Order: sequence, then C-alpha cells, then structure tokens
Amino acid sequence: MIFDKHPRHITPLQERIWRIIFLSDTKAGRQYDLILLALIVLSVALVTLESVPDLAHTHRAGFYIGEIALTGVFSIDYLLRVTVCRRPLRYATSFFGVIDLISILPAYLELLIPGAHFLGILRIVRLVRLFRILKMTDHLADARLLLDSVFHARRKIFVFLVCVMALVFVEGTAMYVIETGKNPDFDSIPQSVYWAIVTITTVGYGDVTPITIAGKMMASVVMLSGFAILAVPTGVLTAEFVKTSPHGPRRICPDCGKADHSREAGYCSHCGHRLPEAE
Amino acid sequence: MIFDKHPRHITPLQERIWRIIFLSDTKAGRQYDLILLALIVLSVALVTLESVPDLAHTHRAGFYIGEIALTGVFSIDYLLRVTVCRRPLRYATSFFGVIDLISILPAYLELLIPGAHFLGILRIVRLVRLFRILKMTDHLADARLLLDSVFHARRKIFVFLVCVMALVFVEGTAMYVIETGKNPDFDSIPQSVYWAIVTITTVGYGDVTPITIAGKMMASVVMLSGFAILAVPTGVLTAEFVKTSPHGPRRICPDCGKADHSREAGYCSHCGHRLPEAE
Amino acid sequence: MIFDKHPRHITPLQERIWRIIFLSDTKAGRQYDLILLALIVLSVALVTLESVPDLAHTHRAGFYIGEIALTGVFSIDYLLRVTVCRRPLRYATSFFGVIDLISILPAYLELLIPGAHFLGILRIVRLVRLFRILKMTDHLADARLLLDSVFHARRKIFVFLVCVMALVFVEGTAMYVIETGKNPDFDSIPQSVYWAIVTITTVGYGDVTPITIAGKMMASVVMLSGFAILAVPTGVLTAEFVKTSPHGPRRICPDCGKADHSREAGYCSHCGHRLPEAE
Amino acid sequence: MIFDKHPRHITPLQERIWRIIFLSDTKAGRQYDLILLALIVLSVALVTLESVPDLAHTHRAGFYIGEIALTGVFSIDYLLRVTVCRRPLRYATSFFGVIDLISILPAYLELLIPGAHFLGILRIVRLVRLFRILKMTDHLADARLLLDSVFHARRKIFVFLVCVMALVFVEGTAMYVIETGKNPDFDSIPQSVYWAIVTITTVGYGDVTPITIAGKMMASVVMLSGFAILAVPTGVLTAEFVKTSPHGPRRICPDCGKADHSREAGYCSHCGHRLPEAE
Repeated sequence: MIFDKHPRHITPLQERIWRIIFLSDTKAGRQYDLILLALIVLSVALVTLESVPDLAHTHRAGFYIGEIALTGVFSIDYLLRVTVCRRPLRYATSFFGVIDLISILPAYLELLIPGAHFLGILRIVRLVRLFRILKMTDHLADARLLLDSVFHARRKIFVFLVCVMALVFVEGTAMYVIETGKNPDFDSIPQSVYWAIVTITTVGYGDVTPITIAGKMMASVVMLSGFAILAVPTGVLTAEFVKTSPHGPRRICPDCGKADHSREAGYCSHCGHRLPEAE
Repeated sequence: MIFDKHPRHITPLQERIWRIIFLSDTKAGRQYDLILLALIVLSVALVTLESVPDLAHTHRAGFYIGEIALTGVFSIDYLLRVTVCRRPLRYATSFFGVIDLISILPAYLELLIPGAHFLGILRIVRLVRLFRILKMTDHLADARLLLDSVFHARRKIFVFLVCVMALVFVEGTAMYVIETGKNPDFDSIPQSVYWAIVTITTVGYGDVTPITIAGKMMASVVMLSGFAILAVPTGVLTAEFVKTSPHGPRRICPDCGKADHSREAGYCSHCGHRLPEAE
Repeated sequence: MIFDKHPRHITPLQERIWRIIFLSDTKAGRQYDLILLALIVLSVALVTLESVPDLAHTHRAGFYIGEIALTGVFSIDYLLRVTVCRRPLRYATSFFGVIDLISILPAYLELLIPGAHFLGILRIVRLVRLFRILKMTDHLADARLLLDSVFHARRKIFVFLVCVMALVFVEGTAMYVIETGKNPDFDSIPQSVYWAIVTITTVGYGDVTPITIAGKMMASVVMLSGFAILAVPTGVLTAEFVKTSPHGPRRICPDCGKADHSREAGYCSHCGHRLPEAE
Repeated sequence: MIFDKHPRHITPLQERIWRIIFLSDTKAGRQYDLILLALIVLSVALVTLESVPDLAHTHRAGFYIGEIALTGVFSIDYLLRVTVCRRPLRYATSFFGVIDLISILPAYLELLIPGAHFLGILRIVRLVRLFRILKMTDHLADARLLLDSVFHARRKIFVFLVCVMALVFVEGTAMYVIETGKNPDFDSIPQSVYWAIVTITTVGYGDVTPITIAGKMMASVVMLSGFAILAVPTGVLTAEFVKTSPHGPRRICPDCGKADHSREAGYCSHCGHRLPEAE
C-alpha cells in the first residue's frame, strides 16, 4: 500500500483504456464488458463440460487450447487493469481485483504443475465476475435493495437459524431413538439430523425414510412443523421488502410540498390541493 | 401490412358475425366462446390421450376422425375471423392470430405428410387459446394486475436469478469435488449442478443424493440456503402485490373528493366528513 | 319445505335440549359439544385403523361393536336434532344437517348390506363435523377472515390456476418429446404432465425423473419456473391478509372522530389531538 | 417454595459469582457464557458422534472421558447457580433451571446404571440451553418479535391446522379407496394419510407413490391443493410481521409532535413542517 497512497499520473491513452475497461459509460466500454461477459460464460462452460468424462476424452485438445486462449485473454485483461488504473495496488487488493487474479492463477498452476488437475476446478470462481454485469446496468439499485432487506432482517434470520438448528437436532435424535435397530437408514444421530434437515426444508429426497408406524407419525409432525417454519423467513423478508420498497415515484404536492402521497391519492392529504397524475 | 392500413368496409352480416366471434358482449358471442373453449379442451385432451400407447392402438380411428373434425372446425373459425374483421392482416399478424394459425397448421401437416407424426404434438399450442377466456370474463383486470406486479419486479427477479445461477454452479462444483470418485451420481459438474437445482428449489427427486459424510454436510448447507432463498422471490412479489393491489373499491369522500381512503377509514382523512360504509 | 315455512311450537323441554345440542352458550351445551367431538375423533380413528389389515383381523369384534355403538349415539343425536328444532326441514336440508345424515347412513348400509364394505369408508365424512368446533370457540372470526381473504383473491387464484394448467401441459408435452423412447418413465403425455405437476409444486417424488441431458436441462427450467410460480399464490393471499387484517383495535380520535389511525400514531392525523395509547 | 419466599442474604463473593454466571453485563460474564456455549456445543457434538457405530467403537475411551469431564463441569455450574442466587428454589423450578438439571441427570444415570444407555440420549436437551445465548446479545428483541407474531397468529394457525388435518384424512381415505388392491404402498388408511401429509407439505419422499391413472389424477389435485395451502400460513405470518414490525425509527415532527411518519415522508402530514432526514 506504501507507494499507492497518491494516484499516479497516467497518460491520455491509459486514461482512454481505463475508461473502456473499468467503466460502462461509453459504447466501447459496454462492448468490452459484453465481450468479457461472453468469455466468462464460455470459460465456465468449458470448466463444466471438461468434467464430463466422455467429453473430456474426445475433446481433450479442444479443452486444452480453449483454456490456454481464455487464460491468455484474462491475463491480458488483468495486466491492462493493473497498468492503466491510477492506483494499481488499491485495485489489486479490491474485491474484484482479487477475484480477477484468482480467475487466472488456477489455470497457470494447472498448466504448469502436472497432476494439479483439481486446482483447475477453482476456475469456477470466474463466475463471481458475473456480478460485474450488475454494474453495467441499472440493476445495482435493485441488488442493493435486496441486500439491504436481507441485512435489516439479519438478526431475525440468525434467531430463526438457531431455532432451526436446535429443532433438527432434537427431531433427528428423537427419530434415531424411534427407528434405530429397525431401520438401517437411521443408524446414527448425524444421519437422522440429515434426514430432519431434508424433511424440514421440504426437499424430501427419500433416500432416508421412516418405516415404523411411530417413525411415520413423528415424520408427520416434523413435516407439518417444517410447513409452519417455512413461513417465518418468508414473512420476515417480505415484511422487510414491503417496508423498504419505495412506493412508486415520490409524489409531491405542488402547493404545500407534502411528499409521501400514495399512488392512488387524488388530493394532497395535507392541504387538499389536486395532485398531478401518478405515472 | 401494405393494403391493411385503412379498415376495409364490411357488410352488416360480416359485422354481426364479427361481433359474435371477436367480442363477448352478446349472448351469441358468449355461447360461441364457450363452444370454442370446449372444443379446444377436447382437442388438447385428444392430443394428450393419443400419446398413450394403449389408447392410440385401440382407438386409432376415433382419434383420426376427431382430429379431422376439430381441424375442420378450427379452420372454419380461422377463415371466418379473417373474412369478417375490418383489418384482416392486423388480425393475422396479431398474437392470437398467429396462435390461431399455428393451432391448425400442424394438423394439416400431420394429415398430409406421412411420418410427420411429431408435428402433431405442436397442436398443444392450442392451449394458448385458452387465455382468450380471460377476455370473456372480468378476469382480465386480475391477470393484468398479476402481470403488472411481475413486470414491476422484473429487475429484482433478474438479479435474483443471476445469483441463483451463480450459486448452483458454485455449489454443484463444490459437491462434485466432494463426491466424485465415491458416488457415481456425481460423475460430472453438469450433473452436480442439476443436483444443486433439484435441491435448492426443494423439489428433491432423490435421483441424485450424496453418500459421503462431507457430501451430506454440504447438502445440508445447500438445503438451508435454498430455504432462505425461497423467501426472496416470494417476498419481492408479495411486496409488489401489497403495493399495487387497490384497497377495495375506490372510496371517495362525498364532501371533498379525496379518493384514497382505506377500507377501515370511517372519516375522510382530509376534511373529516363521514364516509359511506365500505362494501 | 312446504310444512316448514313457519317455525313450529316447541315445549320448554325441547327448548332446553335444543339449547344444549345446537348452541354452546351453556355449560351443558359445551360439554355436549366436547363429548360429540371426542366421539367423532374416536369414530374416525376406528374407520382409519379398521383399514389396517392386521388390526382388522385381530380386533374384528371390537371394531364391529364400536361401530354399532357410535352409530347408535350419532343416530340418537340426529333424531334429537330433528325432534327439538323449530324448523326440522330447514335443519335437515342445511349443510351440517346433510353432513350429520351422511355420517350415519353409510354405517347402516354397511351393517345391513353384506359386501357393501367400501360404503363404510364414507363414514370419513364425519370429519367434516369437526368444523362444528369452530362454532364453539371464538375461532370462527379467524376462519371467516381466512375464508374472506381466499374469497377476495378467488379471481386471481383462478387466473393463476389456468396459467399453471396450461404451463404443465406445455412443459409436460415438451418433456414427452425430449424423453420418450429413451426413458420408459415418460411413455405418454398424461404421465409427463403428472411429472410436470409433481415438479412445479416442488413435491418431487422422484418416481418419474429425466435421464437425458436435454431432459435434465428442461427439468431445471421447469423447477426454476416452479420456484417463481410458487411465489404468486403466496403473494396474492398475503397481500389480501395484509389488507383485510384489522390494524389492531380501531383507534378513534376522541376529538374529531377520525377512525383509521395506525398502531404507531401518537396524534390524530386530521386534527392533531393526542390519541389514547394503543393497547 | 415455602422457604424461598424472601430472597436470602448473599455475601459479596456470591454476588460477584452470581453476576458472572447469571448476567452478561460484565466482561467475565460474557466470557463465562461463551465458554459454557462452547462446552454445550461440544457436548452435543459428543452425544451426536457417539451414536455413529464406527466412532463409538474406536473412540470409546475418548467419549467416556469427555462425557465425565463435561458432566463434571455442568454439575459445578449447576451447583454454583444454586449456591449463589438469592432464591435457589425459584431458579431450580424455573424453565432454565429445570433444563440445567435435565442436562446433567441423564449422564449420571448412564454412568451409574449399566444398560441405561438410551438415557444418555436425553443429554440432547442441553441444546435448549443454547437459547441462553439470545439473552447475551440484543437478539432477544427480535426473538420476542417473532414469537409475538406467531402468538398473535395462533388462532388462525390453529384453524389452519384443523383444516389441514381434516383435508389429509379425507384425501388419504380417497387415495386408499382408489389405490388399495392395486398398489401395496396404499395398504391402509393411516399409510395413505401419511402419503397425503408427505404430499401436501411438498416434502415428497417418493416412498409411497400412486401407480394407477386415477391415483395420479387424485395426487395431482392433492399437490395443487397443497400449493395453495402452503400460501396460507405464510400469508398469515407475513401479514402479522408487516403489522408488528416498527416502521424504522419513530419519526416525530419537531413542530407539532405528530409521530407516525413513514420513511419516505419529507414533510409532517399534519402541519407541513419539514421533517429531519430519516436515518
């Protein structure tokens, strides 16, 4: 951080490239973003498909060349970003700076170190770069709103999670006592807790199911409790959304200035002046 | 579009038929709609049942005759619509005009071209014509309201879907790393992503399930995250519904004209005049 | 209905019994309701357990005697109801009157006609009598509120159901085209529609699952669409509940009479008079 | 209770220990809570893992020693609590007092009585002590709010549960009539009711599934009804949350004192005075 305190001087060319790469307010900038977006999606598709045994075998060369080409492009992108921005260190240590680096490092390690195949999987973090597209559009405000609501509800969600964790442990243990010995599916408490989580979230794989009468009755109680519990996080988040969502564009009375009129209001609730039509 | 710019002149008979076929404001018009509705349902039932091997075999002739009869009726309906409306081209290129055409074309292709059996499946688009019944009733306003809410929430839903897509790829990849080699169910990343989608939406078929301890712990995290995530679209849409739903019939103050009184209000919030009872 | 137009004259004894049986405003009346409630639950338990092959075999006599006894009690109850009320025909043709009759008829048919075993199953309608307990308590207002909300939302729910039905037919047909021939699970469109319903409601039995790559991709789309769709009825009903739920006790300004103040309001929004504390 | 009516006199040392153990307003108190919290989690982990056959075998001694150590610590904690508080009986008979005792008793019984192995499972109640951590933090208000909402909605939830119970019995019986004889999965009504609960809650294990056409149609109806029903508790609870959640910090007009201004309001809805910015 030492030599990054003051922004360094950059040439007009660097400035132009910086504007294209980092911002989205020019046509070239948006095109750069779109191309990068397409390459990220392509790269993730490659990582994903390479894991399919058949495809990996028949298209080995294709995957190899594709990966080298994409890693090359992402490396140039990274180098350009470091080169043209005024505070290279601040960028390199920022959230997206680190993600950009992690997006290319595993590929080099995999290409250089033989046997480091699993490292290649880490290329999946390139997905995180997708969130850059939120920057491009005006979706950022909406993402912000969603995150704000979740943030406001964080304590209620924490309380809720503590209750759910305690509940699945108690229910899982009860089920273990009921079914163990009669049903090999419930051969330990961790397994029974796994069953309780599968059930209470209503996922219901069916890989672990009760077979005794008492077990099925207990399971019915767990399912109906899951039913009710499902309502809590939804209710908490919804209440948050209802509260934080702005009620349409701010309608202001032209006469008295009162500002919080609902969509349906025809007259100012303070002075009775006719309000202009809502959009 | 060239010769459709100005509405053509139509005879009183055409006018009468047009009113019956296109509108629902006469008794004959509503009966026409109802008969068409019944025929569409019958037609979809035929398409559906014809795919059952046993039935297709034993009732071959019945399906054939039924299809010819229904295609005939729908063809007459289409020709009538083109004949009687003032702007035939505008109708033919409208949403329902295209759907009406697609509803009869596959049948002709299937009947004429031998071996074009699968084209017959396209007859299922006749289902879309069902939405015409919304026109008949006063359900249109409600459909409008639902669509408006979804439309208003579209950006939040888009952000949400991007997050979910990124999440299932990351979770699927993590699960692939954990389970691959030990569990044939997780033999590739696409398959693991499929598992993650099945899990996060709480569908939980159980055709792909973890068997290792680490996998079950990871699955528990995915399930509980799905739990929380399920709350987001519900919350977003609900907040939208709460906002856009008109609060009962518009209650207007008989004295000052203020219009946005809630169901519970007894007095006008502007002038204090007693409000008539809410319905 | 002919001889029931005017209420008939009843003796004080009939009046007393009527008050006990039909109302819950005396101690005896509430006890009668509770005993009947217990007998109904017992009766349903008998019907339910009698269907378990082992139990039916070992406790044949017990089930038989229990059924005769309960049918006797319910018959006396029915006769009493007809005898003591002022308008026997109006009762006999009312909702609960019909239910009361259906609750005893199947038992007689089963006991009298040999081989009419399945008729006995109809005794399960006795469950409907459970709803009488809502009358006993002050839960009726809440049941009313729930029903009102559902009633208000009925058109939106109808539109929603039409959309869901169309969707599962289209999705099921698409899946049939994709999987048929490769997967015996999808051997007809009705079966594929069944799969679509199992999937879109997130039940996910796993008895019908896709096996092709294209099928799994299609299934992913169906699941994510189900995810979004699940939000619609919840949102609609919630908006209704939010709207119809009274905001605490009605707070009325003691000075100007304005009536719709929120829980948090400290002053009347019309005249500024201090409001009494909310409960 | 007899000799506990008046608080007994305690020494300053007792007072100091009491403050550490019972309260969280000193650093030592919070550290004590955190250590106890960690030990509880460790203890539950031991109980859980001990049930895994492999681990129980290979680490028998470890589990034994760990259990003795933890039981010792919890016993000292219990004795200290009884010793230092002013009203030992009131503590011992309070909710957490009973839980604290139950947390150590099973361990003693298991260690002392040979063969009382299953009693050890009761140690799982130690989980309930986790809720003490809510006390430590300011999460208590949020837990309170959640519980209040559930409490307010209790009558609606009761009505809802009665309806669901009646529904699953009726649906289960109908399914039994349809499938019995053709499908061994539906061999009794209780089993069919279990299926109805698994289905209506959208858990969908798939251990019991219909195989007849009529059964699948019936199942489709049950699933779609579950879909709608799922919306009711969510809607009820959400409406409650929306109602009880305070609308941000109370905004009060500095001029006239009106107190219930929304987040978005710029001017007082009573006197039009400019409001200070919302946080």
